[in-house]
Amino acid sequence: MITSTSNPKVKRLVNLKKRRKARDDEGVFLAEGIRMFREVPTDLLLEVYVTEGFYKKEKELTDILCRQAKIRQEVLSDTVFAYVSDTKTPQGVMCVVRQRNKTAKKWERLIEKEQQKPFFLVLDNLQDPGNMGTVIRTAEAAGVTGILMSADCVDVYNPKTIRSTMGSVYRMPLWYAEDICEAVRELKRQGIHTYAAHLEGTVVYDEAEYREGTAFLIGNEGNGLRQEVAELADTWVRIPMAGQVESLNAAIAAAVLMFEAGRQRR
Amino acid sequence: MITSTSNPKVKRLVNLKKRRKARDDEGVFLAEGIRMFREVPTDLLLEVYVTEGFYKKEKELTDILCRQAKIRQEVLSDTVFAYVSDTKTPQGVMCVVRQRNKTAKKWERLIEKEQQKPFFLVLDNLQDPGNMGTVIRTAEAAGVTGILMSADCVDVYNPKTIRSTMGSVYRMPLWYAEDICEAVRELKRQGIHTYAAHLEGTVVYDEAEYREGTAFLIGNEGNGLRQEVAELADTWVRIPMAGQVESLNAAIAAAVLMFEAGRQRR
Repeated sequence: MITSTSNPKVKRLVNLKKRRKARDDEGVFLAEGIRMFREVPTDLLLEVYVTEGFYKKEKELTDILCRQAKIRQEVLSDTVFAYVSDTKTPQGVMCVVRQRNKTAKKWERLIEKEQQKPFFLVLDNLQDPGNMGTVIRTAEAAGVTGILMSADCVDVYNPKTIRSTMGSVYRMPLWYAEDICEAVRELKRQGIHTYAAHLEGTVVYDEAEYREGTAFLIGNEGNGLRQEVAELADTWVRIPMAGQVESLNAAIAAAVLMFEAGRQRR
Repeated sequence: MITSTSNPKVKRLVNLKKRRKARDDEGVFLAEGIRMFREVPTDLLLEVYVTEGFYKKEKELTDILCRQAKIRQEVLSDTVFAYVSDTKTPQGVMCVVRQRNKTAKKWERLIEKEQQKPFFLVLDNLQDPGNMGTVIRTAEAAGVTGILMSADCVDVYNPKTIRSTMGSVYRMPLWYAEDICEAVRELKRQGIHTYAAHLEGTVVYDEAEYREGTAFLIGNEGNGLRQEVAELADTWVRIPMAGQVESLNAAIAAAVLMFEAGRQRR
């Protein structure tokens, strides 16, 4: 059992929690809590850290997952676990998980694999970790094929994002595009119709047609889409708003569009 | 200028920031930032606190609003302002605003005032302050008439909620119902059709009809609607989900339902 916060393993975990660079250098991320543990794909599971209390309660689950991943769990004292944890009331389990899909290379293959009507989300400079996680979770529920992100989006492997995805980060194909404009152009070349969510959209969102290959372009929380990204879109769609609301939360706007597409595709 | 954090006025502001009871005892809440300041209804504006830097930059706006509210702004030093502020990078303006609509008394009048098709949201034990604020903002945008909340919902006057509403808290009629079941029964007596958002819903949400008087019942983030509340609903609606997603974020589920109603009502 590790009982000291100055243990090098503990220092590394804190580093992985806090620093995007540390996560990217190792190509891993931390996933915390029973739910994220239960849903972890064991081919991506590299390390498991538990408290004694957690291991007593969830011995069977822990042993099965560790066996499948061919690893052994490591026990941290409650104090050390709380020190490493990103939450106020830690659940006593944390995994080091391998990242997939970090670069935009080869994301075009996913389009070829989809026999029909691929459904993409393109995120331009999304900054809020909680929003990002909620978007990923909602996208899986709405049947999205994959998510393309500009390089300056918040890190999807941020602990707060991971938590908000409720496990969808394990399953949703995600890529950072080095050049988001080029990625949008490639989507268009592949015959996918691109829709910018825009306050100045000329088409009301539910009057557009999302049954064929579709991509929604969603912008930053405060500023919306960058002009050069918006200009690439085939169509600008607008979500009508009552009252004095100037804009919707980015995750909400994305959800309204994605579920309208889902509705049309059912 | 107030320069000491031990000034009694400063202590009171911190109390109002941190304690629901302090806010409710005085019947006020704190609204911070330029946007919340710009949109504050001056008949509810009781006090204004600014930094010197903010006042220099926004003298005209500050003077106009204070004159309309018949008050004088008070200047806090940057250090004191940062101490009182709920944000990491304070914008230098904070108001004390009067609460409206705290109890369920007389919310029924709103139904009578609406000539036709009232549109309510009923929130049962919503706990996340950010979610609550996003729901209020989204509800205004979707054309909701008013929001009824169970007494155990998170405080809408929590600083994080206030911020997430982006000003909608000033405009959206909101009530805490002492007995949420009784409030739902009253909605039904008024001829409003009640729809529970439920994972076990028998009707897909976009197959129901929301053109007449409509109320959506939305439950807690982790547990959904309490059984006794859900049982009162006329119809249980379900949002179909792809992938392995077990549920949607409560604010996302509410948004999908509210904008489907908005779509049908346009």
